[in-house]
Amino acid sequence: MDNASRVVIEHVEPEVDGGRFAIKRVSGERVVVEADIFADGHGVLAAVLQHRREEAQEWTETAMAPLGNDRWRGEFVVAALGRYRYTILGWVDRFASWVRDLGRWVEAGQDVAVDLEIGAALVQAAGRRADGADAAALMAHARVLGRGGDAAIGLALSDDLAAMMARHPDREHAASYGRQLVVQVDRERARCGAWYEMFPRSCAPVPGRHGTFADVEARLPYVASMGFDVLYLPPIHPIARNFRKGRNNSEATQPGDPGSPWAIGASEGGHKAVHPGLGTLADFDRLVGAARTHGLEIALDLAFHCSPDHPYVTEHPEWFRRRPDGAIQYAENPPKKYQDIYPFDFDTAEWCSLWEELLSVVRFWIGHGVRIFRVDNPHTKPFAFWEWLIGETLREYPDVIFLSEAFTRPKVMYRLAKLGFTQSYTYFTWRTTRAELEAYFTELTATPVREYFRPNLFINTPDILHAYLQQGGRQAFIARLVLAATLGASYGIYGPPFELCERWPAVVGSEEYLDSEKYQLRHWEIDRPDSLRDVIARVNGIRRAHPALSGDRNLRFHGMDNPELICYSKTGDADALLVIVNLDPHHVQIGWTALDLHALGLSPDAPYAVHDLLSGARFEWRGARNYVELNPGTLPAHVLHVRRGEVS
Amino acid sequence: MDNASRVVIEHVEPEVDGGRFAIKRVSGERVVVEADIFADGHGVLAAVLQHRREEAQEWTETAMAPLGNDRWRGEFVVAALGRYRYTILGWVDRFASWVRDLGRWVEAGQDVAVDLEIGAALVQAAGRRADGADAAALMAHARVLGRGGDAAIGLALSDDLAAMMARHPDREHAASYGRQLVVQVDRERARCGAWYEMFPRSCAPVPGRHGTFADVEARLPYVASMGFDVLYLPPIHPIARNFRKGRNNSEATQPGDPGSPWAIGASEGGHKAVHPGLGTLADFDRLVGAARTHGLEIALDLAFHCSPDHPYVTEHPEWFRRRPDGAIQYAENPPKKYQDIYPFDFDTAEWCSLWEELLSVVRFWIGHGVRIFRVDNPHTKPFAFWEWLIGETLREYPDVIFLSEAFTRPKVMYRLAKLGFTQSYTYFTWRTTRAELEAYFTELTATPVREYFRPNLFINTPDILHAYLQQGGRQAFIARLVLAATLGASYGIYGPPFELCERWPAVVGSEEYLDSEKYQLRHWEIDRPDSLRDVIARVNGIRRAHPALSGDRNLRFHGMDNPELICYSKTGDADALLVIVNLDPHHVQIGWTALDLHALGLSPDAPYAVHDLLSGARFEWRGARNYVELNPGTLPAHVLHVRRGEVS
Repeated sequence: MDNASRVVIEHVEPEVDGGRFAIKRVSGERVVVEADIFADGHGVLAAVLQHRREEAQEWTETAMAPLGNDRWRGEFVVAALGRYRYTILGWVDRFASWVRDLGRWVEAGQDVAVDLEIGAALVQAAGRRADGADAAALMAHARVLGRGGDAAIGLALSDDLAAMMARHPDREHAASYGRQLVVQVDRERARCGAWYEMFPRSCAPVPGRHGTFADVEARLPYVASMGFDVLYLPPIHPIARNFRKGRNNSEATQPGDPGSPWAIGASEGGHKAVHPGLGTLADFDRLVGAARTHGLEIALDLAFHCSPDHPYVTEHPEWFRRRPDGAIQYAENPPKKYQDIYPFDFDTAEWCSLWEELLSVVRFWIGHGVRIFRVDNPHTKPFAFWEWLIGETLREYPDVIFLSEAFTRPKVMYRLAKLGFTQSYTYFTWRTTRAELEAYFTELTATPVREYFRPNLFINTPDILHAYLQQGGRQAFIARLVLAATLGASYGIYGPPFELCERWPAVVGSEEYLDSEKYQLRHWEIDRPDSLRDVIARVNGIRRAHPALSGDRNLRFHGMDNPELICYSKTGDADALLVIVNLDPHHVQIGWTALDLHALGLSPDAPYAVHDLLSGARFEWRGARNYVELNPGTLPAHVLHVRRGEVS
Repeated sequence: MDNASRVVIEHVEPEVDGGRFAIKRVSGERVVVEADIFADGHGVLAAVLQHRREEAQEWTETAMAPLGNDRWRGEFVVAALGRYRYTILGWVDRFASWVRDLGRWVEAGQDVAVDLEIGAALVQAAGRRADGADAAALMAHARVLGRGGDAAIGLALSDDLAAMMARHPDREHAASYGRQLVVQVDRERARCGAWYEMFPRSCAPVPGRHGTFADVEARLPYVASMGFDVLYLPPIHPIARNFRKGRNNSEATQPGDPGSPWAIGASEGGHKAVHPGLGTLADFDRLVGAARTHGLEIALDLAFHCSPDHPYVTEHPEWFRRRPDGAIQYAENPPKKYQDIYPFDFDTAEWCSLWEELLSVVRFWIGHGVRIFRVDNPHTKPFAFWEWLIGETLREYPDVIFLSEAFTRPKVMYRLAKLGFTQSYTYFTWRTTRAELEAYFTELTATPVREYFRPNLFINTPDILHAYLQQGGRQAFIARLVLAATLGASYGIYGPPFELCERWPAVVGSEEYLDSEKYQLRHWEIDRPDSLRDVIARVNGIRRAHPALSGDRNLRFHGMDNPELICYSKTGDADALLVIVNLDPHHVQIGWTALDLHALGLSPDAPYAVHDLLSGARFEWRGARNYVELNPGTLPAHVLHVRRGEVS
């Protein structure tokens, strides 16, 4: 039992699963911390928020202030990459309590002689805790208080004495929150960026030739011209010959079929080798450097499984599971068999060497300048493995980013994010109605999920061509582009199929592409006049010009009387963008907004201008209710810059 | 790092503050536990809820079942008073996973010879874990599986084998939730009861004479006739002479003024003595026994402070704080001084002896047959003290009930409940509009608060005569009676002022009673014809006849198109009560219900009967929308027994 500390500190936010996991921030962001802080009795409380870099010894403190109803708030800014810790200290401030009571006695005309003596003792004790000038001053003040009278009362109630006493608080019985909570601080790209996924082997300028890293290099200006930040390449490793899949995922191959890049490993090597058709490691290094000069970062795919031809299979048979007939266990999802994929046996007795080898794969590519990894199917490997691998990597290289490609149940996706994944793929692709989009993005941006799960909104992937795109055509591609790029601080497309509005499925009802690049070379006419290249460049240009779009927490949905129109804003310190998208790719839709003017920083009655950054149009609006008409045949969306205090 | 256990168990409910505090139940209640349980990969999971009495060594297990979206549920029943623990164990069920996959292979017409060998090994391993008949049977089954063919497939997919395997699960890599959560199991009276507060000294049959325990005994049939369960007496100890307060809290006393019973302690003794005017300890013991024969329990007041005359002041000066002038620090709430109250100094160096003495007070009255304590102002004493005192008491006497009289900020009230108080006073007294009542009782009964905070709805107290009663008169008293007795499983009145509709405040705007019993003897004409005695008896009779009213979690609010009418139900296994109260004491109010028929177990179209248990009236209703008219001049409320499947 503890009779000393009277203060309770609880319901601290942000806090993930009782402190088991870190919250995530990027360098330069604020961490705003709230807690319930209270005590028995009637004393005045004081509290500080303490924070430090994980490797530092000393806490830095910032004062917390009461918000009412026993809720308190404080904040600090994180700068360095890596891990910070934060916690809270609270105590009964006997001096402040005494000042409050003294004021009331004085106001009521009571004799306070004895009370002043009590205060003198408190000030004297603070003087003993202080040193230097404060110590001397406090001792002198204590004597004044002890003498009583009006001078003593004036001093007692003065701001000067309060400030000096606050510098030397009596924390002997302070209560600590007990838990040290963790902030994982990543670089800016962890929070926001525009991603472009591209198959290197389809980059050759001549149809039918296998593309190379040099061809990708030649394609960099094109990608950069659209305003992307990250160029993500599917696996670049040697591809198996055994069990190779043919065009459109057929069992039989034709001569020259290149196989799926996810069938990793052949006689030329495995996860640390490059496909000979793409070039050499030196070529890859050159590509990484060239990309940097175009403002692009290369992201690689981490697909931790093997083809039957992978050198690991013979060199480390202990990393694979065997069936009773002696065959290595291939991947299964009954009734489907994937004989071209050997999963690692993470339960093997030799799991330590397996884990270390996989970490060495990550280190290998870091050594070649890669700092972003898109991780294939992490939910089919142990949770504990990812927590270890990401933790080990970030300790050495805190600028590394891991994107989780787990399209699975929500709690599993969230768990992977908690375990350390910097960013995560989302259900965005399958959220096409206004109700679905509002519900999902409210969950992602306005609940505790936002503390650890950073969404990356891919519109399409080599595996996912949604029916909305198949059926909606060009208008649908533009609508989804605007949604992804403005709902999400991070978003991505798989091109050139995206900008060329490629929309034929492998079979009707499928989300697979017809003639998918996963199984064959494709030649893309990127200069086609109907390409969305310019629209994409405009959208990414708006993203760069408006920092409000680089965050997710500032998303607010607004009312609109037509359910085919979705309306939301993102606001920053000096910036407010209002986005309205026509979700119906086939018809003109009109409607009236019901704006939350307060969220937009607008007054109820004054007119204001909105400039459409997509079309260049300008409108004068007033109040919450304004007319909107969006014709998908021209542009299915407004991205409106709200010009507070301006008229047209 | 841990590579063995794949299963995650999180978001367990109920759980109070990460397991720091117990949830509360009464003997015979179910504890329904839910958790998110999932793993990486695609294995089938199994989970059990484990529970045991705190002093037991062995866990009892009940299976948990999936609810969808990775949420699981299990339950157990608590019987013995005291503390139980519960936790969760989950694991990947390799056999169940194998059966699922085998079924899919078989359905797809695949060869399963090798798969059957894998299953044979799993069954053989279970056979080694089992003993007796199961061991032999499993070994035989393993041989059948190993031989393959249709017989093996039939056995593999049989319910018999599944059941036998479920009895011998492979838990080598099971994940434990880690925390052991606690249930505090109290007796039924902790959850529900009707309380009657009464000043013994006002029970004399002759006006002006000081009432005695014998007079209280004579009053027992009266209290019992109204259907109360608990008779709570304000402090019964010797009352100070120094600083005694006169009538209506005046500083000056007249000869014969008895003083406030909360000014505890005089030359005759302190917290372990009885006021000589009331009788002797033997008289008290007799009263306790007599009450029991009337189905009543005596509850005492625990007011842990002293009057200046209390023997502790001279015997234990170290338990009190001294001011610089040597005087003992009296209670203060600037600008008010309470020179008649010396608080204990819980920060004294001698706090151990102080705490032990206060615990001995509790034990003393337990020794005299008292098992219910109403605790005065617990929020002005240390939280840690209450956790210790209640914990120590319940360990010895698990049938003791502590009611917290903390009218303070919500988080402090909730903290006291978490620390161990069995029941708590509420803000009910000040919640008089429908919106206020709905919001407050939703918070108390449909949020995690319900796991630890048991409301006791006092309508009035010697300190609180609400303006609604002052202004609303008899109708308001009846409306509040019905609200308290049906919204709350526990409720209370302070009588006879309640049943006699005493409604004059000390001064206009005050909640203090005029001529309050706190400072003077009163003589109550309990046989007055306008007494609410019969109405109270009827209401308490309904409570006893309908178990649905003995719980709080089953409260549901229903729609009503007139905000002056509030409508809610409580439903039990075989019982549904619908309560409608006119909150306007001055006018007839009419309205139409908007009932949640599903919550009432009613079908949308069939007619049904409702019987008003207050008035005896019967109505035939149909569907959600029914007409209601309540005239406060007759009865301001319906307590309707919903007769499913009956017509009038």
